Amino acid sequence: VSQAAEVRTDLVRACLREPVSRTPVWFMRQAGRALPEYRATRGSGSILSAFGDAALSAEVTLQPVRRYGVDAAILFSDIVVPLHAIGFGVDVEPGRGPVVAEPFRSSADLARLRPFEPAVDAPYVAETVGLVRRELAGSGVALIGFAGAPFTVASYAIEGGPSRTFAKVKALMHGDPELWFQLTERLAAMAVASLRAQIQAGAQAVQLFDSWAGSLAPAEYARFALPATRAVLDGIADLGVPTILFGVGTGELLALMASAGPDVVGVDWRVPLDEARRRVGGGHALQGNLDPALCLAPWPVVADASRAVLAAAAAADGTGTGHVFNLGHGVLPETDPGILAAVVELVHNETARA
Amino acid sequence: VSQAAEVRTDLVRACLREPVSRTPVWFMRQAGRALPEYRATRGSGSILSAFGDAALSAEVTLQPVRRYGVDAAILFSDIVVPLHAIGFGVDVEPGRGPVVAEPFRSSADLARLRPFEPAVDAPYVAETVGLVRRELAGSGVALIGFAGAPFTVASYAIEGGPSRTFAKVKALMHGDPELWFQLTERLAAMAVASLRAQIQAGAQAVQLFDSWAGSLAPAEYARFALPATRAVLDGIADLGVPTILFGVGTGELLALMASAGPDVVGVDWRVPLDEARRRVGGGHALQGNLDPALCLAPWPVVADASRAVLAAAAAADGTGTGHVFNLGHGVLPETDPGILAAVVELVHNETARA
Repeated sequence: VSQAAEVRTDLVRACLREPVSRTPVWFMRQAGRALPEYRATRGSGSILSAFGDAALSAEVTLQPVRRYGVDAAILFSDIVVPLHAIGFGVDVEPGRGPVVAEPFRSSADLARLRPFEPAVDAPYVAETVGLVRRELAGSGVALIGFAGAPFTVASYAIEGGPSRTFAKVKALMHGDPELWFQLTERLAAMAVASLRAQIQAGAQAVQLFDSWAGSLAPAEYARFALPATRAVLDGIADLGVPTILFGVGTGELLALMASAGPDVVGVDWRVPLDEARRRVGGGHALQGNLDPALCLAPWPVVADASRAVLAAAAAADGTGTGHVFNLGHGVLPETDPGILAAVVELVHNETARA
Repeated sequence: VSQAAEVRTDLVRACLREPVSRTPVWFMRQAGRALPEYRATRGSGSILSAFGDAALSAEVTLQPVRRYGVDAAILFSDIVVPLHAIGFGVDVEPGRGPVVAEPFRSSADLARLRPFEPAVDAPYVAETVGLVRRELAGSGVALIGFAGAPFTVASYAIEGGPSRTFAKVKALMHGDPELWFQLTERLAAMAVASLRAQIQAGAQAVQLFDSWAGSLAPAEYARFALPATRAVLDGIADLGVPTILFGVGTGELLALMASAGPDVVGVDWRVPLDEARRRVGGGHALQGNLDPALCLAPWPVVADASRAVLAAAAAADGTGTGHVFNLGHGVLPETDPGILAAVVELVHNETARA
């Protein structure tokens, strides 16, 4: 792994379990939602259209860096952007998330999944990455790119929208495994293309969101989700940027997720980081895991909970390296931005190395 | 524990880890939703009104026994019935679940939580239990009563409806622990009163639903949910019927849940039963844990998954006792009833002892 053009940021170093000046911190869904400046910048148009405006997307990507003082920006985008860009028929409904007008149901729908060509289908993504990197040059703040892991993107494609049970996905994967593997192979290729384009444009780390993997039992994850996730990580390994694999409710899956080959395993708030370390082993950094719901409690509660995360991370890894502080899931829209800024300050102060 | 008046059913024996003729099976939410005869019986009125009709509730309780051949009926009711019966202002919306018009927000709301007196506030519950027991007499089918665990009932009272994040509950429990403990103490007393009335009317086992406990981190569960749950179980221990404690996404909490003192720990589909056994220890039976979403897949998939549950249960407990077969969560409304009947037959056939 090399980042020849620039000194490695703390974010990158933590991902690679190298010594850091202080524990880096960023927040999933830090761009958008909770920030008034985001709502002012965005206006009321469709969010998928907003992604197409590189200047706007770069601004929204940078807002949380200014507001919170985080160590990484994450691209303002969505895991369904590639599906949308190839014309699969995806929309993102405010307050609901991705919805698909004609969900994936049969092998006939494979024809709707043509290869994703980032430079042609979504050139605004690389353009946004470039704009953000120029703004962040020399700041020590890293830019994280991302994609959806095949299982989670497939769950939107098949369910047609958010689901609590994932019954249609599970019926398809178990009932027609061949079709499932064809589908996830295509989604893996799309994720690889998307991540490669982001990295080549300047993303210094990438996160693979397998947000809903926690709905799967371990044997199910191993058979139906892990292969395509590993294919995505394998498909970008030659580019040498750190990779983070994250899902919610994945306590039973952490060892399997680690076996997919990411540098960092993201952990939700349910599993203390020292316990996560036991499951993941020593070969991976850990990211997490303050409960985002706790950020709505009074500050002393948030401070105590943040310190508990740091203590568990220290217990997990005596060297004090290999931890990226984050929430255990995305920022809730009703979060007070001041609380998140205070969390960043606390993490930086309490982990500053001499 | 004694069930003097009647030979113990397989359900009761399995809960107590005593030898059974075959592994007993029932399904959470077996009464209602998926059954056409339920929809015909119920009509279109409010479900809370339906609970008030003992003859109708007894019929709905018995329908899945006839249709599926399960080893236990579970009372047709809802965990918010006591809250509703004391006039807290709860409704159950079709497809959404319990909603509260004026959610619990401050100490002033404690005054709205008067003690629950089952014989006065909800006499129809005991009446339904009596009707069902008469119908089941001599059948070998047990009747299970139930209540909501204080955390989960509190989550409805505070959030005002279903939640994905439980942010208001967490803000209250962490921000005002004293109020939280006053609230959950009252809800524990309501659950004790409700369960005692059901048991005295004839319920032969009871399940405590802490459905949403899995949203809590282990330390949070130990501090904020476990004490009131233990108080409920302690409050009915003298009545000597088996107790089952269940929640979803509770992999990290299983040992703590076991420490609350139930005879049986319910496990969702994410944790294989042999792994659950390692966490729970040898002193408890296990209930579960076929993924309800898989019941929408083709039958060979359901059969394989059911056999995998039985195999994990056998691996968990070499004696073949101490397992109550169930789903890992409630029956999905779109489930084909024929599939559930076939699951019961499979479990019975494959576990029949000479």
